[in-house]
Amino acid sequence: MGTPDLISPRSPRVAAARRLVRRNFRTKERRFLAEGPQAVREAVACRSGDTGTGTETAESAAAAPALLELFATPEAAARHSRIVGEARDAGARVHLAAEATVADIAQTVSPQGLIGVCRFIDRPLDALLAARPRLVAVLAHVRDPGNAGTVLRCADAAGADAVILTDASVDLYNPKAVRASAGSLFHLPVAVGVPVGAAAEGLRTAGVRLLAADGTGEQDLDDELDGGTMSGPTGWIFGNEAWGLPAETRALADAAVRVPIHGRAESLNLATAAAVCLYASARAQRATH
Amino acid sequence: MGTPDLISPRSPRVAAARRLVRRNFRTKERRFLAEGPQAVREAVACRSGDTGTGTETAESAAAAPALLELFATPEAAARHSRIVGEARDAGARVHLAAEATVADIAQTVSPQGLIGVCRFIDRPLDALLAARPRLVAVLAHVRDPGNAGTVLRCADAAGADAVILTDASVDLYNPKAVRASAGSLFHLPVAVGVPVGAAAEGLRTAGVRLLAADGTGEQDLDDELDGGTMSGPTGWIFGNEAWGLPAETRALADAAVRVPIHGRAESLNLATAAAVCLYASARAQRATH
Repeated sequence: MGTPDLISPRSPRVAAARRLVRRNFRTKERRFLAEGPQAVREAVACRSGDTGTGTETAESAAAAPALLELFATPEAAARHSRIVGEARDAGARVHLAAEATVADIAQTVSPQGLIGVCRFIDRPLDALLAARPRLVAVLAHVRDPGNAGTVLRCADAAGADAVILTDASVDLYNPKAVRASAGSLFHLPVAVGVPVGAAAEGLRTAGVRLLAADGTGEQDLDDELDGGTMSGPTGWIFGNEAWGLPAETRALADAAVRVPIHGRAESLNLATAAAVCLYASARAQRATH
Repeated sequence: MGTPDLISPRSPRVAAARRLVRRNFRTKERRFLAEGPQAVREAVACRSGDTGTGTETAESAAAAPALLELFATPEAAARHSRIVGEARDAGARVHLAAEATVADIAQTVSPQGLIGVCRFIDRPLDALLAARPRLVAVLAHVRDPGNAGTVLRCADAAGADAVILTDASVDLYNPKAVRASAGSLFHLPVAVGVPVGAAAEGLRTAGVRLLAADGTGEQDLDDELDGGTMSGPTGWIFGNEAWGLPAETRALADAAVRVPIHGRAESLNLATAAAVCLYASARAQRATH
């Protein structure tokens, strides 16, 4: 056997992958990085979005996995042999690489020996709406990639049918957002770069009631729940990290809702407020079925 | 007038404050750092805990503010003149300091020109229990200071009466925990360093039902809510960042409860799970009053 052949750290494939930590290269290539066994496993299983070639039918596009290429240390390839095998079977190009090469691509200390290159998996807004979603999270002004990923993970956990990132929010494919989503990015249909007005109009036309989550909202979440208005299709619009929304965004919603502050805290942070709102909807929707 | 006198960066007072970024010095001095106008304002208003001298009566101890000393840049002192005035009126020693001195004490880039030295404000477990709390958060194995602070902030927002950090959790007075609590550290009675068994026994004796928050818990939060068992005094035990609890900690609780995962996410993170649990209790308790 001997030592396995490792890809050269100076290989053009390594250079092409490493470039994807930068947004302009991601946008140009329509590719992004997924780190670690959990994300890579989900990327193999994910068949969402277009394949980027523009020539396939919906059926053949649906069959292509999100993972295109995988760099794995020999140790990680042995430890996660099932994931690596599935990646290979799904048509991904697998390279064995030194630990330093994997770390260099990820630009983090410990991607656990695995890093994948994926194609963009976002869907057009119309495709999301055509599926008649009952619970949607709209990230309208979220600037911190970690927060965006965490809200995406919460939306997935709460059973949301779709997530929309507006053009004023952070890049979904930022490595920190991908990491914070803990694989959820690959679970839910996501639309990106949507103007908030178009998102609101599309959702309303699809029969979705829009609630703006805002710490200064005139409606209290408990009152909304008591009023029985939350059992139908609902879209939550989440703002920036201080979870306020500009007046013009608030005006797009049917109501501006605040999570009640029972104690003396000034506010909640974005991710915890979003978790409370999304789980309130999940419970209200299930109580009527 | 001329330039205001600034404290020397080599002053023993600056050195004493800067040492408080390290836990062993905090523990020895029973003092910690609070950064920025929000935390400093709350520290002036906070009269909780003992004064550290051990000679005062409960009444005189209750009158002493948590803030002992304040370093402020001339710009911050002018911008936050009310906070600085209140600090001085409350008996805190106020020093004008160069931006670099303030940043050096905080060891962060932007403490917004204000950093305070506070006395420890935690209370004995018995004092917390004597107040007959109805909603309590127990941080049993929380290792990340940012998570501890965020859960404390959520507990405050949800109207919890007390927070208990066990001896297996991170230091409450870690600067990252103080920062993430966004002032809530000064709002709620907190006990620290409590063995989890003693916390559980004390709470149960005080008539508090104990729920272990655990992603693999046998009870579903929705079922608990539907069962009407959550309207009484409740203590939530939160575990580590993957929000699992060791079996021996779970066994201390009346039930192990999971937040339902409706979608395909593997789990929630600790802070978002805690937010959902604490707000579920807040709503269940209020619905019966």
